[in-house]
Amino acid sequence: MRNIDTICATATAPGGAIGIIRVSGPKAFTAVSSLCSINCNTAPANTVHYTHIVAPPIVYDAISRHNIPTKYDSEPIDEVLITIFRAPHSYTGENSVEISCHGSSYILQRVLDILCQQGCRIAQPGEFTMRAYLNGKLDLSQAEAVADLIASSNKTTHDIAMSQLRGHFSSELSKLRKQLLKLTSLIELELDFSDQEDLEFANRSELLALAQEIDNHITRLAKSFNTGQAFKQGISVAIVGKTNVGKSTLLNKLIDDDRAIVTDIHGTTRDTIEETMEINGVKFRIIDTAGIRQSDDEVERIGIKRTNQAIKQANIVIWLLDAPPSKKENEEMHELLKGKNYICVHNKVDKVDMKTFVPYFLPLYMISAKTGKGIPNLKRHIFEEAQRAGLISNTTEIIVSNSRHYESLINAHKNLQHVINGLGKQLSGDLLSDDLRLVLSDLGEITGEGYITSQETLNNIFSTFCV
Amino acid sequence: MRNIDTICATATAPGGAIGIIRVSGPKAFTAVSSLCSINCNTAPANTVHYTHIVAPPIVYDAISRHNIPTKYDSEPIDEVLITIFRAPHSYTGENSVEISCHGSSYILQRVLDILCQQGCRIAQPGEFTMRAYLNGKLDLSQAEAVADLIASSNKTTHDIAMSQLRGHFSSELSKLRKQLLKLTSLIELELDFSDQEDLEFANRSELLALAQEIDNHITRLAKSFNTGQAFKQGISVAIVGKTNVGKSTLLNKLIDDDRAIVTDIHGTTRDTIEETMEINGVKFRIIDTAGIRQSDDEVERIGIKRTNQAIKQANIVIWLLDAPPSKKENEEMHELLKGKNYICVHNKVDKVDMKTFVPYFLPLYMISAKTGKGIPNLKRHIFEEAQRAGLISNTTEIIVSNSRHYESLINAHKNLQHVINGLGKQLSGDLLSDDLRLVLSDLGEITGEGYITSQETLNNIFSTFCV
Repeated sequence: MRNIDTICATATAPGGAIGIIRVSGPKAFTAVSSLCSINCNTAPANTVHYTHIVAPPIVYDAISRHNIPTKYDSEPIDEVLITIFRAPHSYTGENSVEISCHGSSYILQRVLDILCQQGCRIAQPGEFTMRAYLNGKLDLSQAEAVADLIASSNKTTHDIAMSQLRGHFSSELSKLRKQLLKLTSLIELELDFSDQEDLEFANRSELLALAQEIDNHITRLAKSFNTGQAFKQGISVAIVGKTNVGKSTLLNKLIDDDRAIVTDIHGTTRDTIEETMEINGVKFRIIDTAGIRQSDDEVERIGIKRTNQAIKQANIVIWLLDAPPSKKENEEMHELLKGKNYICVHNKVDKVDMKTFVPYFLPLYMISAKTGKGIPNLKRHIFEEAQRAGLISNTTEIIVSNSRHYESLINAHKNLQHVINGLGKQLSGDLLSDDLRLVLSDLGEITGEGYITSQETLNNIFSTFCV
Repeated sequence: MRNIDTICATATAPGGAIGIIRVSGPKAFTAVSSLCSINCNTAPANTVHYTHIVAPPIVYDAISRHNIPTKYDSEPIDEVLITIFRAPHSYTGENSVEISCHGSSYILQRVLDILCQQGCRIAQPGEFTMRAYLNGKLDLSQAEAVADLIASSNKTTHDIAMSQLRGHFSSELSKLRKQLLKLTSLIELELDFSDQEDLEFANRSELLALAQEIDNHITRLAKSFNTGQAFKQGISVAIVGKTNVGKSTLLNKLIDDDRAIVTDIHGTTRDTIEETMEINGVKFRIIDTAGIRQSDDEVERIGIKRTNQAIKQANIVIWLLDAPPSKKENEEMHELLKGKNYICVHNKVDKVDMKTFVPYFLPLYMISAKTGKGIPNLKRHIFEEAQRAGLISNTTEIIVSNSRHYESLINAHKNLQHVINGLGKQLSGDLLSDDLRLVLSDLGEITGEGYITSQETLNNIFSTFCV
């Protein structure tokens, strides 16, 4: 399974002042040494060296029919810093060099080209991290946390990834594994010695209680995936209401930008517009919808259809009003919002006389999207509504945010259900034991414990990585 | 002039797997030490350390009325590598730390925030490089070469910047400076002892010859700016000709893309379209123009006007033909192309019978823009034409590519002309000496020798930098 190629790739985005090239593998030290004045093989680990990268000119060797680099008239490519990492104390666990170049696209390409001439090859996506996993530097869920951490753009997604990288999820799974092994051994013990009546075993109800406890734990983790998804993709908040109640103005005010076109003309917004904002480090997706009214305009009618869709998909709905709704409107809206987490918001408090407004619904939040009055309060209410909906939980808890992990947990739960049912039905120990092994394997897939994960699965996981 | 703030900034572009934060200044070690488990003050220079960045929570201190960080319940931000650079052996010449984080926008922002809480401030554009200059790590022209090197995207711009960074231009200027000082001292010697008839001085014709030699050198450098500009911006090649001769097809074929819209309709291209390509590492800007014909279409007529403009501005013109031009056409075109470097190209060799084509002009290149026949040959001819036009010279020569340097050279040349005229007119030595000091100061401004450059000039130079 170990790949002994030496790989290289840029680890930074194009366009910066600095560009980092990583080189890892058995030839890393020799390849880099041949481009500069530093002998990487003898340089101490974890040291940085200032040097010049020099391209050896290429000559065509007629015998080998290859381009052979020579040491004559070498061409200066860049002044760089190189850092030496010695196995196993590197990201990949292999001998590695980081070359810190000036961030010119030409320079980075040239250095990679020359490294390839020296026997390296360009790394595949995620190959550095895959090697770190294969060399036991990280388990699979931690490796996936690296990708999540790099992609994190707010506090919550960062905290989940960081917790996973630090092994909190892995140690939770390790606890589950221990409990499962205990359950397995108890069942197998029963199996082995069931004919010896003088020995006392855990009775089936105790086994059932233990299995149930493990399942509860797995289910709790699986359920956290909702929260994890909401954090990753943002909690969706749809703003709905009649035309011209100020939905687009509210969106603009919430995101503090002029994203949506605002006019006095009814039906200005015809497609849904989506923007993100953060409240207390949590990402929310605010969706401005087409105003609900009877319309002859085909485009507008499609827009209203999309509004109904948006309501269905939204985690939270803001029903925006600028006057008391009619009885019919009220009923229709309640029908639409049935089962949804929604907030009634009264807009235009600066224009509409408060006294004429009969509070049909409670709580009713008073705002002026135009002046910004009540907006901070509304943001707090949106956040609290998300908490009430169970979409925001304490991030010190383990939150599953990876759909691969979620699927493994669901599979583990299903297989554990077979065990639980089997225990109830007095199924024989060897059958139970088979199911338990499936549960162990499902959980093992999350961290890649014991390298039970196939190369294909590994390729799938790491191919989405950037490093 | 020395700024004793400690500055920090990201040195990499957003979006990569790795993000580098640079910290430089007197508090760099203390600030970074307070965020992680490494004591930067005692860590050896040029060593790399694996550690965690931890955000100290902030408490409000009622007495100082400031937010004061505490050491309790600190929040993990990232697993990082930090590199210690000890003054004067760092980029800036100051104590510096590079923090290699995961490239998440959230993480990088948080680390910068925390560094600022610890007494650092965000660096202004170019401030790291300005400090390197102020600390004598680079002269001004070398500092400017850093920015050019980072921006370089092909071999020629890279080679010019690299040569400048390695001090080739600076040492050329240093030679000029020595010659100028020799000239000045000879003139001042004449001035001091001109009443002592028994002493022999360099006669005025010798002084004139020396001044002329220096001026030739300065003029040669100033002239190279044309080449430098052509390299930086690309050598412009305008494709002109009648409508429908295949100009847009040729552009697409040259750049190997479908940039320009191609139809059989005469007058399809109405505005000039510009794309870049490289030949032998040199950047060319290919400009597709509106076809030349009498047109009633107002937009097209503006387009044709722009074509004439494009011909005027182009370094090289390709006159594209698909049939022998009429006598009138031939005359008109020769009028338009008078004094230009142009290439006549016969397109559609696959369609038009070669025998009917009378070669009015030589050399005439045969291509088929559609099939690509003759295109590699044409590219070679474009390159050779650029060489003939003096736009491509050997990059081992010093090439001035910076307009600030060019202006200083032109000023030096003007002031030296006063000296040369003065020598011819037997102007008194003290007046000549004043002019020579101006020449020295003009050249000194290029490298910033003796810090004669004003802070305002420095700010102007460095504000366009990214690091």
